[in-house]
Amino acid sequence: MTGPGIVPVEWRGDAVAILGQRLLPHREEVLECRTVAEVAEAIRSLAVRGAPIIGVTAAYGMALAATLSTQTRPRRLLAELEEAARTLKAARPTAVNLAWAVDRMMRVATGQCCSVGSTVQRVHEAMVAEALRIEAEDREACAAIGAHGLELVPEGARVLTHCNTGMLCTAGIGTALGVIVAAHRAGRGVHVWVDETRPVLQGARLTAWELGRLGIPRTLVVDAAAGSLMARGLVDLVIVGADRIAANGDVANKIGTYPLAVLARHHGVPFYVAAPTSTVDLGTGSGAGIPIEERDPAEVLAPGGVPVAEPDTPVANPAFDVTPAELVSAIVTERGVVRPPYARTLAELVAPRGAA
Amino acid sequence: MTGPGIVPVEWRGDAVAILGQRLLPHREEVLECRTVAEVAEAIRSLAVRGAPIIGVTAAYGMALAATLSTQTRPRRLLAELEEAARTLKAARPTAVNLAWAVDRMMRVATGQCCSVGSTVQRVHEAMVAEALRIEAEDREACAAIGAHGLELVPEGARVLTHCNTGMLCTAGIGTALGVIVAAHRAGRGVHVWVDETRPVLQGARLTAWELGRLGIPRTLVVDAAAGSLMARGLVDLVIVGADRIAANGDVANKIGTYPLAVLARHHGVPFYVAAPTSTVDLGTGSGAGIPIEERDPAEVLAPGGVPVAEPDTPVANPAFDVTPAELVSAIVTERGVVRPPYARTLAELVAPRGAA
Repeated sequence: MTGPGIVPVEWRGDAVAILGQRLLPHREEVLECRTVAEVAEAIRSLAVRGAPIIGVTAAYGMALAATLSTQTRPRRLLAELEEAARTLKAARPTAVNLAWAVDRMMRVATGQCCSVGSTVQRVHEAMVAEALRIEAEDREACAAIGAHGLELVPEGARVLTHCNTGMLCTAGIGTALGVIVAAHRAGRGVHVWVDETRPVLQGARLTAWELGRLGIPRTLVVDAAAGSLMARGLVDLVIVGADRIAANGDVANKIGTYPLAVLARHHGVPFYVAAPTSTVDLGTGSGAGIPIEERDPAEVLAPGGVPVAEPDTPVANPAFDVTPAELVSAIVTERGVVRPPYARTLAELVAPRGAA
Repeated sequence: MTGPGIVPVEWRGDAVAILGQRLLPHREEVLECRTVAEVAEAIRSLAVRGAPIIGVTAAYGMALAATLSTQTRPRRLLAELEEAARTLKAARPTAVNLAWAVDRMMRVATGQCCSVGSTVQRVHEAMVAEALRIEAEDREACAAIGAHGLELVPEGARVLTHCNTGMLCTAGIGTALGVIVAAHRAGRGVHVWVDETRPVLQGARLTAWELGRLGIPRTLVVDAAAGSLMARGLVDLVIVGADRIAANGDVANKIGTYPLAVLARHHGVPFYVAAPTSTVDLGTGSGAGIPIEERDPAEVLAPGGVPVAEPDTPVANPAFDVTPAELVSAIVTERGVVRPPYARTLAELVAPRGAA
C-alpha cells in the first residue's frame, strides 16, 4: 500500500499484478502477468511506466522467471534467467532503473547458483526476497527524496511539473511528485501546474488524478502553455523526474523536459530534478551517450487513442529528451540534494553504493 | 478557389459557406451560415479559424447582415449593422483582423447610409463588393508574403511551424505556410516539422493534411519535441503566423509560439513571423495590451474530443501567448520583410494604409 489506494505493482507469488495505467483515470484495471513475456509487454506498452516502478516491476519479473522455471539444476536455471533478463531489458532501452534492477537480480541469481550446496529452491527464495527488498528500498527512497526536497519548496510555491512521477510510478510517494506531496503534507500550501505531457498524456491522465486524490490543488495545462505561465510570473519552480542521469549531470527525461529547462533558465525560475540514485548512471559520461527511444507513431497520430491526423502522416516520436547539466539547478536524491558541479557531487553521492 | 480544392469560405449571395474545420481531416463538411449569429458561432466554435480568414468571414457576415435586413431606410439598416458588428466582434476577442474587417465594413456602410440619395439596395451592393475586395486582397497578400518570405528560406531548409497558417485560414496560400509553399514551389527542397499544436491540434489535423495535399515533405511532432529537434541541429528556422502584432513588434499567436521563440533564441535559430499588415495593430503599444482569450477547458480535458482527464479537473486554457519583439528575427508582410527596431519599421510599413 503506497498511498490512498494506489498500488502500482504487487508480487503475488505466482504472478506480478500491475495496475494498468493506460485506462486511468477512467478505469482501474489490474493486469495479472503470469509470464516474463507478459511482464515485459506490460513495461513496453506503458501499462506500467515511470523509471522507479519499472525497476521494481522488472525485479518481480526476474523473481517470476525463477519461480516459473522447471529446471532442477541451478546452472540451467541461470541460463533461463539470463534469457529473462534480456527480454526485460529490451522492453524500454532508456530507463536505467530497468537495467539496474535486472542486473541486481542477476547478481543474486549468479551468487546463489554458483554457491556450494545451491538449490533452485534457494535461488527462488533469494530472488523473491531481493525483489521485495528493491520495492521496500524504493518506498524508503521516495520518502527520503520528499524530505530532502522540502528545502527547495518555499511557502505557497506554485510548482510546475511534467509527466507522472508519483505513486503510480514508484513504490512510495513518488520522486518529483514526492517532493510536492511532502511539501503539501508539511503545510507549505503548494499549487501545482500539471503539464498534460503529450503524447501519452501522463500528466492529464495520471498526475492530475493522483493530486486530486491527495487533495493537492492543481491546474492542468497543455505543455505549450508553460512558457506563458512563466512569462506571467506564475511559476516559482519546476520539478521533474529523470529516466537516466549521466555522470556529468545531464538528465534524460520525458520529451518536453528540456524545453521546460530552457524556459526556466530564460525566466530565472529554478529547475530541479528528483530521482533515486539508482537513476544515476556513472557509466554514461554525458547525455550524448543516452539512447533515446523512438516510440509508436500512433501515440502522436491518435491522442487519447482517437485518430486525429491522417494515418499515413510521417511522425517523429522521441520519447525522451536530454537536459544538459548546466540548466539543472539541483538534483534531489534519497541521499540528499546535490548541486553543480555534478561530475563531482554525483560521483561522491553514488560512490558509497558502488563501494557497499 | 485558393488551392487544390481547399476553399475555406465562400460568399453565396444569401449565405456564407464555410468549410467546417473541426472534423478535418476525416470529413469535409460545408456549413451554410444563413444568419449573422450562425457566422459568429462558426467563428467562436473554430469551425473557421486563423486570423486572416476570420476577417474575410466576418466581412461576409456583415454583407449577409445587409442582405438579410428588411429595413427600407438606410439609417435603420445602419443600426442593425451596428448590432451585427458587435455580435461578430465578440466571437473572438484576440484576433485583430476580425475587428479590422468589421470596422472596414462598417465604414462602407456608414459612408453609404449617410450619403445623399442613399438606398438600402446601394448599401447591400457596396457591402458585398467590399467583402469580396477584402477576400481578394487577402489572396494577393498571401502571394506577396510568400514571395517576400523566400529570402528567409535557404536551400534544403528544415522549417518548424506551429498551428495552421495555410490555405484553410486565409483566402490564398497562407501566411507562414504561404512562405513554405512559395519556397517549395521555388524548388528550395524544404522539409517541414509540424507541431501538432495542442489543445485544438490544428497542426496535426490541418497543417499536416494541407502539406500532404501539396506534396510538401513534412513530419508531425508533439509540441514538446521542438526543443529536442533544435538541440539536435535539425531545425534551420521557425516560422509562425500572428493573431495580432503590437506597435512595438510584440506578437500574439497560438499558445506555444512563445516557447518556440525562446528555444529558437537559445539555439541560435532564426524565428520569423509571417502575417498581413492587417494583423499589425498600431493602436496597441505592446503585447501587455493584447487581451488573451481563455478557452473552454474541454479542449484540454478531451484531446481530439475524447475525455482523458477527469471531467472536474481544474484547467487553465489560454488560447494565445505573447512573444516579445526582441525574440522575433523578422516579420514578413505583403509589403516586405521588416526587422528590428519594429517600433519604427512597422510604423513605416503600415502608415501608408492608414494614410490611403
